[in-house]
Amino acid sequence: MILMWSPKSPFVRKVMILAHELGIAEALALQREVAVPRGVPNPAILAVNPLGKIPALIRDEGPALIGSAQILDYLCEITPGGRALLPASGEARVMQLRWQALADQLTEVLLDWRIAATGPLGIDAARRASFEAKTRAGMALFEAEAPLLRAAPFGPGPIALTCALGQLDFRYPDCGWRAAFPALTRFAAETAGRPSVAATAIVNDQGDSGPDLQLTFE
Amino acid sequence: MILMWSPKSPFVRKVMILAHELGIAEALALQREVAVPRGVPNPAILAVNPLGKIPALIRDEGPALIGSAQILDYLCEITPGGRALLPASGEARVMQLRWQALADQLTEVLLDWRIAATGPLGIDAARRASFEAKTRAGMALFEAEAPLLRAAPFGPGPIALTCALGQLDFRYPDCGWRAAFPALTRFAAETAGRPSVAATAIVNDQGDSGPDLQLTFE
Repeated sequence: MILMWSPKSPFVRKVMILAHELGIAEALALQREVAVPRGVPNPAILAVNPLGKIPALIRDEGPALIGSAQILDYLCEITPGGRALLPASGEARVMQLRWQALADQLTEVLLDWRIAATGPLGIDAARRASFEAKTRAGMALFEAEAPLLRAAPFGPGPIALTCALGQLDFRYPDCGWRAAFPALTRFAAETAGRPSVAATAIVNDQGDSGPDLQLTFE
Repeated sequence: MILMWSPKSPFVRKVMILAHELGIAEALALQREVAVPRGVPNPAILAVNPLGKIPALIRDEGPALIGSAQILDYLCEITPGGRALLPASGEARVMQLRWQALADQLTEVLLDWRIAATGPLGIDAARRASFEAKTRAGMALFEAEAPLLRAAPFGPGPIALTCALGQLDFRYPDCGWRAAFPALTRFAAETAGRPSVAATAIVNDQGDSGPDLQLTFE
């Protein structure tokens, strides 16, 4: 299997963390690609995912899969033991997918915020306020549910949250979320010790600049 | 169960079409809410989904679910016969989820395009070109796979595509996609005859304006 990959995509990171947890990271051949959020999309990605995003998983048989949620579902299904991380049914599955949806939406807000702010026109105040309000509300929900997340298997839900918090650290390094959210801080400290998380830390090796995204938790 | 609902959200429509197909539409109490894509988020939505989007499904027991993909997964699981539309495993499931991911990303492009274009700063040329390139590539993929979609059960994949095409009709009524994509036109004509699709047509009953989004297929 070939994974269209980048070391600074939080959604690619979801796939890589799960692959490490399942013990199948070596089975993924990584093909580095740059997703272009504005302007001419990368034609190599477009040929696999016409919507121009990564991750995309090129299977040995059958069409490629797109979207981190489906790729996680697929890898859990085809890997022995995968159902321990994402059960096929029941409330344990519901909670994993619910946390994943919440964390993915939080990550999308952080990405959309940056895409809007880095455009030539900049970002208007109303849109910025919307992104900030959603980020604060999302963090508050996860703070309240952090004990449940710490007790759950390290499946798609906790993995997606790890990637959302990683994106916050990557693009808003001075926001001070750890001072404001002690339960989430404990969650992040525990997960940081997992080999799957340490092996997939976001790397900005090709560099990029952009506006100073102002976000401060108090 | 209570569904946070709007008659002009394509992702809410996905849930409603599936509910009609499963015969459980009457079991959903609809609570109309307006999602605010910029500025102060709707507090009623924020209390259930801190990321401020609909659909959100308030369950009788257990926390609310967000994201149309999880809600579809959940409704298929709890409804007798639901696995005919979304199998629990295997390639039939993979294809339904793949089409759903592709169509959802296409719908997101159309929504993001409009949100960017309706802001006070307008949209820059590079971002507009990106949205258009992705829309064209997405439509081309679905045109090629339309025969497979017509042959598959009317599950999350074909439902999500129906909602993406409906969004195109709603916001880009003069784009002429039917002249350019004959196989997709046949798919849409067949699905338009389904009671679930007819009962959930997008209604812009509170009106809204916005820029003329230019998109033309040839």
